Amino acid sequence: MASSLGKIFVVTSYGESHGKCIGVVIDGCPAGLEVNETDVQYEINRRKPAAEAGATARKEEDKIEILSGLFNGITTGAPISMLVRNKDVKSVEYEKTRFVPRPGHADYTSFIKYRGFNDYRGGGRFSGRITVGFVMAGAVAKLLLKKAGMEILTHTVQIGNIKSKNTSINKIRKNAEGNLVRCADIETSHKMAKAIQTAKEEGDSLGGIIEALALNVPVGLGEPVFDTLEGEIAKAIFAIPAVKGIEFGTGFKSVEKKGSENNDPFDIEDNRIITTSNNAGGILGGISNGMPIVVRVAIKPTPSISKTQKSIEMQRLTKANLSIKGRHDACIVPRAVPVVESMVAIVLADFALRAGIFTGVIK
Amino acid sequence: MASSLGKIFVVTSYGESHGKCIGVVIDGCPAGLEVNETDVQYEINRRKPAAEAGATARKEEDKIEILSGLFNGITTGAPISMLVRNKDVKSVEYEKTRFVPRPGHADYTSFIKYRGFNDYRGGGRFSGRITVGFVMAGAVAKLLLKKAGMEILTHTVQIGNIKSKNTSINKIRKNAEGNLVRCADIETSHKMAKAIQTAKEEGDSLGGIIEALALNVPVGLGEPVFDTLEGEIAKAIFAIPAVKGIEFGTGFKSVEKKGSENNDPFDIEDNRIITTSNNAGGILGGISNGMPIVVRVAIKPTPSISKTQKSIEMQRLTKANLSIKGRHDACIVPRAVPVVESMVAIVLADFALRAGIFTGVIK
Amino acid sequence: MASSLGKIFVVTSYGESHGKCIGVVIDGCPAGLEVNETDVQYEINRRKPAAEAGATARKEEDKIEILSGLFNGITTGAPISMLVRNKDVKSVEYEKTRFVPRPGHADYTSFIKYRGFNDYRGGGRFSGRITVGFVMAGAVAKLLLKKAGMEILTHTVQIGNIKSKNTSINKIRKNAEGNLVRCADIETSHKMAKAIQTAKEEGDSLGGIIEALALNVPVGLGEPVFDTLEGEIAKAIFAIPAVKGIEFGTGFKSVEKKGSENNDPFDIEDNRIITTSNNAGGILGGISNGMPIVVRVAIKPTPSISKTQKSIEMQRLTKANLSIKGRHDACIVPRAVPVVESMVAIVLADFALRAGIFTGVIK
Amino acid sequence: MASSLGKIFVVTSYGESHGKCIGVVIDGCPAGLEVNETDVQYEINRRKPAAEAGATARKEEDKIEILSGLFNGITTGAPISMLVRNKDVKSVEYEKTRFVPRPGHADYTSFIKYRGFNDYRGGGRFSGRITVGFVMAGAVAKLLLKKAGMEILTHTVQIGNIKSKNTSINKIRKNAEGNLVRCADIETSHKMAKAIQTAKEEGDSLGGIIEALALNVPVGLGEPVFDTLEGEIAKAIFAIPAVKGIEFGTGFKSVEKKGSENNDPFDIEDNRIITTSNNAGGILGGISNGMPIVVRVAIKPTPSISKTQKSIEMQRLTKANLSIKGRHDACIVPRAVPVVESMVAIVLADFALRAGIFTGVIK
Repeated sequence: MASSLGKIFVVTSYGESHGKCIGVVIDGCPAGLEVNETDVQYEINRRKPAAEAGATARKEEDKIEILSGLFNGITTGAPISMLVRNKDVKSVEYEKTRFVPRPGHADYTSFIKYRGFNDYRGGGRFSGRITVGFVMAGAVAKLLLKKAGMEILTHTVQIGNIKSKNTSINKIRKNAEGNLVRCADIETSHKMAKAIQTAKEEGDSLGGIIEALALNVPVGLGEPVFDTLEGEIAKAIFAIPAVKGIEFGTGFKSVEKKGSENNDPFDIEDNRIITTSNNAGGILGGISNGMPIVVRVAIKPTPSISKTQKSIEMQRLTKANLSIKGRHDACIVPRAVPVVESMVAIVLADFALRAGIFTGVIK
Repeated sequence: MASSLGKIFVVTSYGESHGKCIGVVIDGCPAGLEVNETDVQYEINRRKPAAEAGATARKEEDKIEILSGLFNGITTGAPISMLVRNKDVKSVEYEKTRFVPRPGHADYTSFIKYRGFNDYRGGGRFSGRITVGFVMAGAVAKLLLKKAGMEILTHTVQIGNIKSKNTSINKIRKNAEGNLVRCADIETSHKMAKAIQTAKEEGDSLGGIIEALALNVPVGLGEPVFDTLEGEIAKAIFAIPAVKGIEFGTGFKSVEKKGSENNDPFDIEDNRIITTSNNAGGILGGISNGMPIVVRVAIKPTPSISKTQKSIEMQRLTKANLSIKGRHDACIVPRAVPVVESMVAIVLADFALRAGIFTGVIK
Repeated sequence: MASSLGKIFVVTSYGESHGKCIGVVIDGCPAGLEVNETDVQYEINRRKPAAEAGATARKEEDKIEILSGLFNGITTGAPISMLVRNKDVKSVEYEKTRFVPRPGHADYTSFIKYRGFNDYRGGGRFSGRITVGFVMAGAVAKLLLKKAGMEILTHTVQIGNIKSKNTSINKIRKNAEGNLVRCADIETSHKMAKAIQTAKEEGDSLGGIIEALALNVPVGLGEPVFDTLEGEIAKAIFAIPAVKGIEFGTGFKSVEKKGSENNDPFDIEDNRIITTSNNAGGILGGISNGMPIVVRVAIKPTPSISKTQKSIEMQRLTKANLSIKGRHDACIVPRAVPVVESMVAIVLADFALRAGIFTGVIK
Repeated sequence: MASSLGKIFVVTSYGESHGKCIGVVIDGCPAGLEVNETDVQYEINRRKPAAEAGATARKEEDKIEILSGLFNGITTGAPISMLVRNKDVKSVEYEKTRFVPRPGHADYTSFIKYRGFNDYRGGGRFSGRITVGFVMAGAVAKLLLKKAGMEILTHTVQIGNIKSKNTSINKIRKNAEGNLVRCADIETSHKMAKAIQTAKEEGDSLGGIIEALALNVPVGLGEPVFDTLEGEIAKAIFAIPAVKGIEFGTGFKSVEKKGSENNDPFDIEDNRIITTSNNAGGILGGISNGMPIVVRVAIKPTPSISKTQKSIEMQRLTKANLSIKGRHDACIVPRAVPVVESMVAIVLADFALRAGIFTGVIK
């Protein structure tokens, strides 16, 4: 396993779905940053299942514990260790299907890679629950970015085949957190919620697309040729289970444009260099250009569904049918919004530290 | 800059578009691998501009020199250093527009990040020419993967809005290298070539989508939670200039499927576990599952166009018009095919070494 | 801070002397290794202060908690998270001298580096107490090495100016753990214990030299040119507070030998290649040669002494006298023995994994 | 192999003794640093064999070529690639003894590790010649450190059993480069030179101790707990062939002092915090404290001697006698002086960049 991410702001993840806890160690955070437990808890709460909209029925208190790295509520420069205990764990059901891998899950690949020693309960290390650790780290990263005026807005732009209308930054800031599916376009949000409800009733699931916008990112973040801003964000995002695609700016659609349409013209505004469009999604040559960074992430439909599926028995190599019981989200997209936001924040924090932009910012 | 990629199979890139050479150092390649200069040269030749189809008129001999790491044509375990000299370099034109950044290029971001000290000639370190080094490393990686029976097929699936028809692995293997645009669907390839020609005549450019398939990849490559197979491939791919999106398997389209449609059922074939569809693109939980790995990469239209564009003068902060002369590809997609293939090969080689699969394979 | 060590077997440390706990995350340990809590607890107990011999009076239960990475007592391939709670903490005394750095300690350098935000209580992150985490990781590393037949013996060879007589491997194995100072030469051990007692009574402290021998290490561990076996062991060892020197084999004394005396002749024994002497300390060209790896580590006298010392007040820049109260070891050398052993084990485990020697060893 | 060193200032080494060249790639050097080819060539010339004092008779022009990373003589932020061609290579002699490893050399360990594929000619990748690359990188690092006022002085303090008298910084600066053995104590330097001459005549060799002092290093360099200043310097130094020990400040001798003697009292001088002694060698808690950093490095006697030695034939497992012909230094210590200096410079440059001290220093 490789459970550490980042070069200067280094996030180390541990924990399993049905183990004692999910934890994270954040190394390299500068000294002098105020971190309130409530700031971190707020983000963890954002990740919790909502009361509706097809989210999992698993109930967890998810109360964070900060074990190290803070002194009187301020970072000391030492690694920050945080964890959340797992409480509401029912593992018995997983025993029955231990050797029958769930389609679309890591059950088969982890069984082979770890020679049967993997903790299979609830997906173990491959459960979406491990993203609790990502969100704790992201909460700290966001506090750090805030010191330099950066902000990340994240919202759901598509659920199944229901697409959000183009929305302004203000609308996203105002509306996205106010509805169950985290869509900034309120009318569409209702349709999305309904579609999720329908999928749930059918024992099926839906995927979607999440968009993150990073605002006020200074020019110069990113370390080409290999540690590009896109590349590191992508690597971090693919650590989220169920992600199958990522694009920046106009992304896959830029393919159908001509160069003369896709190039963003430069201009001067308030004595600053800007571009008058943002097809590049705020990144040129792997380096931030000062415009909003725009990332879109494709989340596949949740593989855990109650409909009967075809699988096999891995030890006997025989066919087997599988119907997944347990508690599962019919659509994880809304809950993945703060997770995507966290990964973007973690990567930006790392690049900001590599570029030395906090020198003198944090006193 | 961060110019090294990989954990065990480590590729270090150097060189600039109009400097003396483009070079690469490959560290961590196991001893005992036969590497013929012609194998590497073959891949470099694949990357060269074709006679037609809108590719750049810059003529380079691009003859590789191997400086270290081989003894009697076999790897020794020591770092392999290779370079290609730059020959046909005309830098004068770049002087004129030194402070007028080309839209869609890294001119502006690199000027700011490196405080004006960047080598701006021909894009310097941000030119597509640096991918010569990637291809040399990819050539070695492919020889290594071949020892374990792995193969990568790469082809153009879209140019502008012209899409290749679904093609079989056999067709890709047979047709893709046989036409100017590297499209396995020959009829479509003609349309693509024509579209590129038209764009060229208009002083404009086109983008496209490249697909790579990695075959016979054993189950178990990838190191979650952070070094996932998708994440590391994505990071490597975004080092290629002009890439703006990446997806695996059904990718962004999986979003519109239901879980019951998108999950790949498991089955038994010839005493092996397979999936009967491959929406996952050969990867579950960040780990290869033995099915073909399917990657699709969005390449934006080449930013260098001869049409007049709006820019600014960076020192005086005034508006400026820019018309790019010089030699530029109207569409780099066909030439990027071996580059995408190289990055996939480099990442797979690194993961294969991390998983220890060459133990006993290379004697 | 940089709190992770290793490339494949990655140890991440966190915690402070007077914080909630000392913890460690071990990533990259292969699946399938049996780890009993008692094995780890045994090593932690070795590190505890002894009843005598000048060791600190701080009493800690030091009971380990394993938070992740094990399933039914066997490693799963997931990161292993372990911690020990801090219990017997008296921080008040440190408040008084917050701005008066203790000579020989990190108080001054950490105050400057972390701009006064460091947790100064008990040395915070720079306390010897953080080595609890190293020992937990070392315990797991030793279990892993044992699977491949490797063993590490560690003993005290010098305290102050009292030197152990040359001792055989059998004597070290038999005697070292049986006395308060961990010296394999029993007669000398008494003298050492007495010298420590005298230093304690004088309000002073002693240093010493620890020797570790790694036995049955296969030929081939080490990754030159930069990740040499000596270099990585040295780096790991210098993470132990108070270490000021390290040597391998004949080390500094080899300087006074001629090449003809210092070169170890090769010979054949039981159809194996050996050397008839071991001035090289088991390492040639940064790679293990199959002979015992011999490391010697110089530990400076404990800087915490009750004698009055000259210091300064860092904020007012005035002179100040300092007399350190609190509980401190007059000689930490005996307690550092399992810590040195742990660091050697951690590095060997990492190199053994890099060399792939556990393939097939752990089923 | 692991051929890259450093986290931000990353040095990648390649080349073999009897291959085409020795090269280095330096990544992460800030843009805006003037690098004259003559500055680098000067350091390479320091490393060349002297006319006397037992140094090797191999004659190499050792002219550096800079391949990338500079534009108009100033760093661009892109990787700096440099090499020196190997010219005076006689490999025939090595063929005869290919399977008879030289005692004290890496012949045996590299043969096993690389399964016989290693380039054995002249020690291949394990030759002292690879340090040419280290010195090129060190030359750039020194130019960078100079911008922040740092200086490194390096000199020979012992050859065989002949020890230099304690010398002042001024004497080192004035005398060390002025004699064949690089000893700041001129009288002793003659004795050392003579001893080397005698050893040479006897077909034998001598080792020695090199001391480096880094001056004007700001407080705060080093990244504990694992990337300590001592630990990273040690790791870098052990990449130099023949190094068998390293110590900082009073080092191994501190063991015989009491805490009250070894602790360096703090004091105020010119409104700066200093210590009135420097037993710590400028490092407390793994972090520089503003006093001179003092490193001492033990170099074993050159293993290549013409005296007949006992070895074995590795393929047939039979005993064999070996007398090394070829050209070899009877004592490499004087030539290793600039190499030790280079490694210290490389590590300090990396830590200085990690601490952000060049922000605003290089315009």
